[in-house]
Amino acid sequence: MSFKKSTNNYQSKKNIIAGRNPLLEALRSGDNIDKILLFKNASGDVINDIRNKAKQLNIPIQYVPNEKLNQLTNINHQGVVAFKSSVIYQDLQQVIDWINGNGEVPLLLMLDGVTDVRNIGAIARSALCTGVHAIIIPDKGVGALHEDAVKSSAGALEKIQICRVNSLLKAVDDLHLNGIKVFTSEMNASKKIFEIDFTEPCCIVMGGEENGVQSYISKAADEKFSIPMKSDFDSLNVSVATGISLYEAMKQRL
Amino acid sequence: MSFKKSTNNYQSKKNIIAGRNPLLEALRSGDNIDKILLFKNASGDVINDIRNKAKQLNIPIQYVPNEKLNQLTNINHQGVVAFKSSVIYQDLQQVIDWINGNGEVPLLLMLDGVTDVRNIGAIARSALCTGVHAIIIPDKGVGALHEDAVKSSAGALEKIQICRVNSLLKAVDDLHLNGIKVFTSEMNASKKIFEIDFTEPCCIVMGGEENGVQSYISKAADEKFSIPMKSDFDSLNVSVATGISLYEAMKQRL
Repeated sequence: MSFKKSTNNYQSKKNIIAGRNPLLEALRSGDNIDKILLFKNASGDVINDIRNKAKQLNIPIQYVPNEKLNQLTNINHQGVVAFKSSVIYQDLQQVIDWINGNGEVPLLLMLDGVTDVRNIGAIARSALCTGVHAIIIPDKGVGALHEDAVKSSAGALEKIQICRVNSLLKAVDDLHLNGIKVFTSEMNASKKIFEIDFTEPCCIVMGGEENGVQSYISKAADEKFSIPMKSDFDSLNVSVATGISLYEAMKQRL
Repeated sequence: MSFKKSTNNYQSKKNIIAGRNPLLEALRSGDNIDKILLFKNASGDVINDIRNKAKQLNIPIQYVPNEKLNQLTNINHQGVVAFKSSVIYQDLQQVIDWINGNGEVPLLLMLDGVTDVRNIGAIARSALCTGVHAIIIPDKGVGALHEDAVKSSAGALEKIQICRVNSLLKAVDDLHLNGIKVFTSEMNASKKIFEIDFTEPCCIVMGGEENGVQSYISKAADEKFSIPMKSDFDSLNVSVATGISLYEAMKQRL
């Protein structure tokens, strides 16, 4: 399944909210919105309210020509179309408080650039199986967590906490302020994964298929680790690499 | 097994096309060709046709001295040798003999019912990364190991040994006759994966997404193991579960 195909599928009518007041109403009533597409010249009070509410809720807005919106819906969209999300996004600090309140040692997973919906689905399954408390994703550049992703996660995406943040770097700062260490998975790291102490409160950061963990996240991390390889073919699928990392963390905590 | 060794193996005789007309015929009939080695002074109409067809199909041509071609084949190559690009099926006993001949401790992987091409691709990558000597698959009911599978394996399927057998049960018998233990991954097994001794000559059996390991294979196995779960959501993707199992085996062997 290609990302493109999934995206098309995702844009099925029942996932769409079109029109200014319907969207504002949806935002106010707490509907989960993945993304808002806004006609670049749209203006007015309701548009301003939508903008403010979206900012407050970390919902990305993409500015598009009107033709793009016309392609998406036959409804009078008034310059605004939004996609509903199947996933409930949580606030990172609230999730951390909740974990601490339960007397548990935080185990978090940050996805820095994983875009493929099938990989995200498989990762959510692994996260749920291994006791990860929440998955942190950026609000841009990540595969939309719509029906296809939920399906390929065997429902895990609806069961695990997802924190969508507008800056991964700020999230790393927030983790540090909460005493949570940040460990990045990097192919060239000299430290092996089993030399990392995952029994501490920690967040594992996995990079995308193409570019791995971004350098500014890597620099802000407490430790970098690699999964040892028996051959010079060092190309694990990202969902497999994530599964192995989470397995190692879980095993240490058992 | 190193990557290099596999590559050499890949250039086994059955993957070679030698001679001008045989190659032109293969190109015309749509055979997948990885690379063409051409005697640098070769010329003539057929050579020109081969050059044109190769250019059209984006097949790289490497110009080499005649001696290089003589090393590759005993056939009258007429200045041209090509490598077929496809998955190489090996004989299980020959592979075992080859592993033993190299003084290595066999680590094999059997796929019992994995049909999804993307999963097979990811599994091949994990197998190559973790030092698996060969993957055993049945000749029926397995996802076709065609271009999509090779692509989603990032090329791993062309580098790892694949043994295609017409009976997995007979393959288990063959493994036993060669002193290789058979460990099946089963969700309900009481023995945890890290309680298994993977430093012995062994074959890990992974079942399919739907039904897991077939009962007659399970009965013939030496041990069954499960991957521990932190939650009652016990549904790892099969390629992730395989990656974790192979990681555990590799780690024990390091």
